[in-house]
Amino acid sequence: MQVYPNAFQPEGFFFLGKPVMETLTSVAAMKHWSRSHLAKGESLGFVPTMGYLHEGHVSLLHRGRSENRKLVASIFVNPTQFGPQEDLASYPKAPEADALKCEEAGVDALFLPTAAAMYGPDFHTYVDVERISDPLCGASRAGHFRGVATVVLKLFNILRPSAAYFGMKDYQQLQVIKTMVKELDLDVRVVSCPTIREDDGLAMSSRNSYLSPEERKQAVCLFQAIEQARLMFELGERDAASYIRAMSERIMREPDARPVYVSLVHPETLVDLTEVENGCLAALAVRIGKTRLIDNMLFERMETGGNGR
Amino acid sequence: MQVYPNAFQPEGFFFLGKPVMETLTSVAAMKHWSRSHLAKGESLGFVPTMGYLHEGHVSLLHRGRSENRKLVASIFVNPTQFGPQEDLASYPKAPEADALKCEEAGVDALFLPTAAAMYGPDFHTYVDVERISDPLCGASRAGHFRGVATVVLKLFNILRPSAAYFGMKDYQQLQVIKTMVKELDLDVRVVSCPTIREDDGLAMSSRNSYLSPEERKQAVCLFQAIEQARLMFELGERDAASYIRAMSERIMREPDARPVYVSLVHPETLVDLTEVENGCLAALAVRIGKTRLIDNMLFERMETGGNGR
Repeated sequence: MQVYPNAFQPEGFFFLGKPVMETLTSVAAMKHWSRSHLAKGESLGFVPTMGYLHEGHVSLLHRGRSENRKLVASIFVNPTQFGPQEDLASYPKAPEADALKCEEAGVDALFLPTAAAMYGPDFHTYVDVERISDPLCGASRAGHFRGVATVVLKLFNILRPSAAYFGMKDYQQLQVIKTMVKELDLDVRVVSCPTIREDDGLAMSSRNSYLSPEERKQAVCLFQAIEQARLMFELGERDAASYIRAMSERIMREPDARPVYVSLVHPETLVDLTEVENGCLAALAVRIGKTRLIDNMLFERMETGGNGR
Repeated sequence: MQVYPNAFQPEGFFFLGKPVMETLTSVAAMKHWSRSHLAKGESLGFVPTMGYLHEGHVSLLHRGRSENRKLVASIFVNPTQFGPQEDLASYPKAPEADALKCEEAGVDALFLPTAAAMYGPDFHTYVDVERISDPLCGASRAGHFRGVATVVLKLFNILRPSAAYFGMKDYQQLQVIKTMVKELDLDVRVVSCPTIREDDGLAMSSRNSYLSPEERKQAVCLFQAIEQARLMFELGERDAASYIRAMSERIMREPDARPVYVSLVHPETLVDLTEVENGCLAALAVRIGKTRLIDNMLFERMETGGNGR
């Protein structure tokens, strides 16, 4: 990664190569950077990540780049959203590759705070987005969405972004953040971006790196279970229990796969459905060996215009 | 209250009287107002209140007026900080007198949101400032500081004030808000203002209006209990239990007064002290008949220079 020292740039001179990406580690420096751009009326796009960036993240960066004058990405493996038995210590890291991907995607500032910078020793302020944090992943990951909401609120306060970009793969996270933004009167526009998938349909995730080659093959069961449900939806099946049975059976066909949950829910409340409706969400979490993966899909019926209107 | 319609003000013309105070009721209008002034680089002072303004509130307005280009006051009797057995429905109101006091104090915009504007029908996002919300008033008012922190965060997000002004009478509230601002990386400067007292020492409070003439006389026991403790402090007493005993006895001398709590605590953690230290806080809540009143005082020893330095 090349760095062009600003001191040698004459005013009005533009490099033909990529502009310089700034890397900031302190909260004060990040606030100062964002305030100086916001004061000029520049829009600020923000992509918060936990690093180990894949094409899903890069798609968020591209969307953010296209919609804003300035683009900030953060990489912070947030300890408060991990449970004591979870993979905080082993979460994959690739700081140099991540910085290169950010720079190539046109990120203006990369925020890399330490846990100590984000959470003082007596940190005890938390945001709870109740109800919507309870089902699905919330049921098996106590405190997870409280940690997510709190760190995202902190990052929003530090950056004051005009828009923030999140992937649909983490659908419940997206709903938690949308609810928080609305209910706490934040100004940020929350942008949902489509899930990016491998060729066989596996949703991209930093945690896919945990999978052995054999587990990687089996991991396609998440997408295939959803695809099977989508077929049932297109055929007009209404009974949610039938979907859940079929999806669970598809998962259980893999020797190392065990469902954590398989659900058909309302897309906004995330409440379980018994009758499958247009616009509903199929969501599942599956353990492949020791790795916990999630996926989801919104089922929307095409309007055929058959009613003559 | 006179209103000068803006439409008839020629540009560059200044009234010799007071400037016009704007009254705003919607969140969107308040956001628009504040953003338009912030975009000009104007500092914004904010005094959040529950109305029924007394000299304590007015002192906050004066402080805010002296330190900022623009001054906003809010009046909102926040339902989420009242328990089900508390006085939400009977909380005193004086909207016209309040507006006049605000205008006289130089308020530029008075924010009067409805509960429906602040809390949608499915509102479920709350801020918890843990630990510091637990003792003192938190122990007898479950959820009170959660409601306070949540509404203040919402108001801060709506207004984005440069500085916000709170009275020391609500000392624990002030510490909860200071902690929230620090831990959630908010930019607002939280300003503590001294408690304003009646001639006999009773701390000014909207709830004093609940007192019958006989109860009003007895209510001086809060201040007198604190004054007695202050005397003990000046005489060098160290044993916290002795203070608590003396303060409780003073309160119990009044026929209609019953202590809710009487405490000597660390001024930042609010943890009970057994040995009284310089800088500690004496805090108490007392029921006078059906009215719950609070008061507090920081005890700080004057440095006499007696050690020869």
